[in-house]
Amino acid sequence: MKAVVRRDKQLVCDEIGELAPSGGQVLVSTLACGICGSDLHALHHMEHMIALTRRAGGGLEGFDPTADTVFGHEFCAEVLEFGPDCERKFTPGARVVSMPLTLTAGGVEMLGFSNRLPGGFAERMLLTEAMLLEVPNGLPTDKAALTEPFAVGAHAVAKARLEPDSVAMVIGCGPVGLAVIAALKALGHGPVIALDFSPRRRAAAERLGADIVIDPAKESPHDRWEQLGVPKARAAQSLMRIMGQRFGQPVIFECVGAPGVLQALIEAAPVGAQIVVAGVCMETDRLEPSMAVTKEVELTFVFGYAPEEFALTLRRLADGVIDVDGLVTGIVGLDGVAAAFTDLADPEAHVKILVRPGAKTQTE
Amino acid sequence: MKAVVRRDKQLVCDEIGELAPSGGQVLVSTLACGICGSDLHALHHMEHMIALTRRAGGGLEGFDPTADTVFGHEFCAEVLEFGPDCERKFTPGARVVSMPLTLTAGGVEMLGFSNRLPGGFAERMLLTEAMLLEVPNGLPTDKAALTEPFAVGAHAVAKARLEPDSVAMVIGCGPVGLAVIAALKALGHGPVIALDFSPRRRAAAERLGADIVIDPAKESPHDRWEQLGVPKARAAQSLMRIMGQRFGQPVIFECVGAPGVLQALIEAAPVGAQIVVAGVCMETDRLEPSMAVTKEVELTFVFGYAPEEFALTLRRLADGVIDVDGLVTGIVGLDGVAAAFTDLADPEAHVKILVRPGAKTQTE
Repeated sequence: MKAVVRRDKQLVCDEIGELAPSGGQVLVSTLACGICGSDLHALHHMEHMIALTRRAGGGLEGFDPTADTVFGHEFCAEVLEFGPDCERKFTPGARVVSMPLTLTAGGVEMLGFSNRLPGGFAERMLLTEAMLLEVPNGLPTDKAALTEPFAVGAHAVAKARLEPDSVAMVIGCGPVGLAVIAALKALGHGPVIALDFSPRRRAAAERLGADIVIDPAKESPHDRWEQLGVPKARAAQSLMRIMGQRFGQPVIFECVGAPGVLQALIEAAPVGAQIVVAGVCMETDRLEPSMAVTKEVELTFVFGYAPEEFALTLRRLADGVIDVDGLVTGIVGLDGVAAAFTDLADPEAHVKILVRPGAKTQTE
Repeated sequence: MKAVVRRDKQLVCDEIGELAPSGGQVLVSTLACGICGSDLHALHHMEHMIALTRRAGGGLEGFDPTADTVFGHEFCAEVLEFGPDCERKFTPGARVVSMPLTLTAGGVEMLGFSNRLPGGFAERMLLTEAMLLEVPNGLPTDKAALTEPFAVGAHAVAKARLEPDSVAMVIGCGPVGLAVIAALKALGHGPVIALDFSPRRRAAAERLGADIVIDPAKESPHDRWEQLGVPKARAAQSLMRIMGQRFGQPVIFECVGAPGVLQALIEAAPVGAQIVVAGVCMETDRLEPSMAVTKEVELTFVFGYAPEEFALTLRRLADGVIDVDGLVTGIVGLDGVAAAFTDLADPEAHVKILVRPGAKTQTE
């Protein structure tokens, strides 16, 4: 079957071996699979990325980042065929999504970061039946494929210690930032301040319900804290509390993942802010701990999602609680994946590009 | 009156102006005042320290770090004379402690970091009557002077999300680490693992109730996690939770405050650990955010204490809940302060040196 293979830090269309489902596994046809920022990074830096993950005890046993890998972990697929010991809970042809983990006799394979099993940039995949969720409510395939990236937002918001009157600020409106905004608004939380240099991403933030959308080239979002009732300094906070004024702990979601952003936030944040770090900065970063101490800032690093957050996100998409209209800005076939990786380097060009392994390339 | 003045990055004994209490203020005689790690740092680097504090919005309006300053913010004092508008709640001669803040017509002065009012390395100080706490229960003066540094521990522990079965690890057993151990054991929390390269500090940790005391030159404390029932990796955690095994979120208290420690902890900590950062690293630090993300580590930077934590600490000292016997390893007069600053650079030589402005220097 056809797949896009990462080989020698390049993406090549190639034939790879056919798949046969083992116990508990289901062979599926990949209908659509999003390209994630981590894929863009991994194309060139996977060796470094995996080395850091391993130093952090992150597993991925047996994975060789220098060997062939088929990326793709944000997918919607169609059930083709059941392996042995399946409950056959779905009829062939059913559309499903799954967390990108497949259980095998040798352990858990992380789809998209495996040499043994292909991710979603291949015509077919092997998934674990017990992890499949059928796409409900006639949700279109392209939207169902957004379950995975939007689940990241649900998890980040679950890790935030939001009170009803907490001001939430989302730094960066790429797919992670948009997913955070969607999860905040799905809970009815507000006000949500969002910022991004890109007009296209700001428009997407607005569509997903951000209450205040700011172009940081024109205005510092941090000027808004006091206007929204959040005192920036300790003395002012104490005074307001003494006077009985309530304000929830401010929460800032860092969704950029570039060096220097954390320190800039530590410096600009109000005293006592929680910074939920959802952006993944793959480079060494520098910060001034004494400033974080003076402010009693909290840095909450978040990763992935729990199965229930994944399922909740699918339901929110299917029920229209999260409206992702317009977020898919490009669709490519396998032959278009390499070019799409290049296009995504420009934040103005796209929000999300989906790969349809059966389709020919077409972009907006 | 006599005082030790920081002038041109040196400590000099000099005469400074007499003090007269304004409204709400009390003139006190300084009985004992501890030398804090922040004093040692400030002697040479106060300009940088204040610049960072100000970038973080930390106030200290009107303070000129290049002008004369009298350090000392960990004190026990004796009431001499009341200013106007005092309630005169104490009799002259009463021994008192206070948070090192004095209210003046011009604002709040932070004793020890003020050009207008001297800190505790002076024969007398001006304190605010409303903030004074009388030393109860015949608690000796030298122990009462430890209220301030031990309140730092009470605050750090209050910021930790400890569950009854959380393993607590204290990195560094200088005064901050010892205060954290004392606050943990005052709550009956265990197990508490403490580590320090210095035998003297390890002995102090043991005396304050640390359950496991480790010399990191001989053994990595992080080898103990699994032995204490805390799985280090995500997969092992999930498996244990599926099997119904309980373990609280592990909490690590960083009480060293040197560059590189945070990253080493991020790398060695179990998945999901909370790192309470109580050590104040005054230099730029470097870390790998992606490793913190993979592990979902939380960095909770803490600073100071609330008035109720200060009062609670005094009560714990007076009731013997915290037994600080043996922690004061040196006592100096004003003439011995400069030499004491030098002595404290060696972690083996001392735990805490107190200054007795009325006494002649004597060290152990």
